[in-house]
Amino acid sequence: MADRYRIPIVAIMNESGKACSDLQALHTGSMASDNQPMPNRLDQQIAFILEIDRLKTILRRTLLTDRSRLENSAEHSWHLAMCAMLLVEYSPCAIDVARVLKMALVHDVVEIDAGDTFCYDVKGNLDKAEREQRAADRIFSLLPVEQGAELRALWEEFDARETPESRYANALDRLQPLLHNCHTQGAAWRKHGVTYAQIIERNRHIADGAPALWTYMKDLIDDAVSQGWLQK
Amino acid sequence: MADRYRIPIVAIMNESGKACSDLQALHTGSMASDNQPMPNRLDQQIAFILEIDRLKTILRRTLLTDRSRLENSAEHSWHLAMCAMLLVEYSPCAIDVARVLKMALVHDVVEIDAGDTFCYDVKGNLDKAEREQRAADRIFSLLPVEQGAELRALWEEFDARETPESRYANALDRLQPLLHNCHTQGAAWRKHGVTYAQIIERNRHIADGAPALWTYMKDLIDDAVSQGWLQK
Repeated sequence: MADRYRIPIVAIMNESGKACSDLQALHTGSMASDNQPMPNRLDQQIAFILEIDRLKTILRRTLLTDRSRLENSAEHSWHLAMCAMLLVEYSPCAIDVARVLKMALVHDVVEIDAGDTFCYDVKGNLDKAEREQRAADRIFSLLPVEQGAELRALWEEFDARETPESRYANALDRLQPLLHNCHTQGAAWRKHGVTYAQIIERNRHIADGAPALWTYMKDLIDDAVSQGWLQK
Repeated sequence: MADRYRIPIVAIMNESGKACSDLQALHTGSMASDNQPMPNRLDQQIAFILEIDRLKTILRRTLLTDRSRLENSAEHSWHLAMCAMLLVEYSPCAIDVARVLKMALVHDVVEIDAGDTFCYDVKGNLDKAEREQRAADRIFSLLPVEQGAELRALWEEFDARETPESRYANALDRLQPLLHNCHTQGAAWRKHGVTYAQIIERNRHIADGAPALWTYMKDLIDDAVSQGWLQK
């Protein structure tokens, strides 16, 4: 397997197309003191890509709309990114779509270690931040240092909800499971005894990132009440 | 449910932040001749978002790396987008990362109708293009016209492999399942009797979009041969 550490250096460009000699240097596998090859940059990236495969096994509380099974966090992240791509016109201010998509893709990766914490689970949310910080320490450190830092910064930006991009991404992270609940007769709400007040309290923040989408979703929640899937 | 057609018009901005009066006009629900409300723009977008949930039920031939089950096309699309975000430095020329991410997210949506066609299934690939065109006609037409056209163009760009972005995205669409196979002792290859020659023929195109990644993967394939997971 040592051959894998000797990949040839080809023209390596950064996103703006400039040849990047620092990256070329990082690409050169070097030898550690015990004569074992050090993992090079691409080995680290591939290790991370293999590790995040585990996000496909992290189950959420949301059902698929056909009610066949629970959704996992990897496919949720895809669905969220699709929503982000499709609904960008509802952001009240201009946003960087590429950064939103990257945030959507990476926002749940820490769940590989920390698990998915149900948003209405008061006890689980007490130590969520600590569990996720530990997970971030381990998972992002699989990557080359500056790339791990870049992904961690995206994850932290998403969580902080301070930038327009993260408020928009967070709005959709609430909208997507809410849509699923409204289209499965409130299955997850009923199973977990979630109340109308809890749903409003959590989801009214959709308005922070996409006001028109909150108006739309509020109508869907009211419709769920009138259908008897949710008690007011 | 008619209330949902009366969402208020808020400031609607396009990606560059300019108010977009055409979109505002599209937002106004109008009445069809039979006095039924016409679906407005947001209704169409939400219908599409709900429809694509079905991509989570389309199974591929690739196993998860823990071998617990087959991968589905939604979580594969997420994994592909993550790869695209992480490995962009291996594109031999400057590329638009946002367009690559959008292509990765949308590239398999037609499988909702057309199913996943195994890349080594000669018979299945005979009518794949026709099945996928029909699927694209139906699925993208759920969206507002210009948005459906935009997504269809991304899907067609991906398939044509003519732009640097699509060559790069296609390279990773081959790399990701290849990685899974190499890390599951060639499970899918062995199950489906895929030969070394077929694997090389399909995956050598990784070099078109990311030459260094093909060198890396070729070493992994050779390693699979020496491990006895694949006959040369």
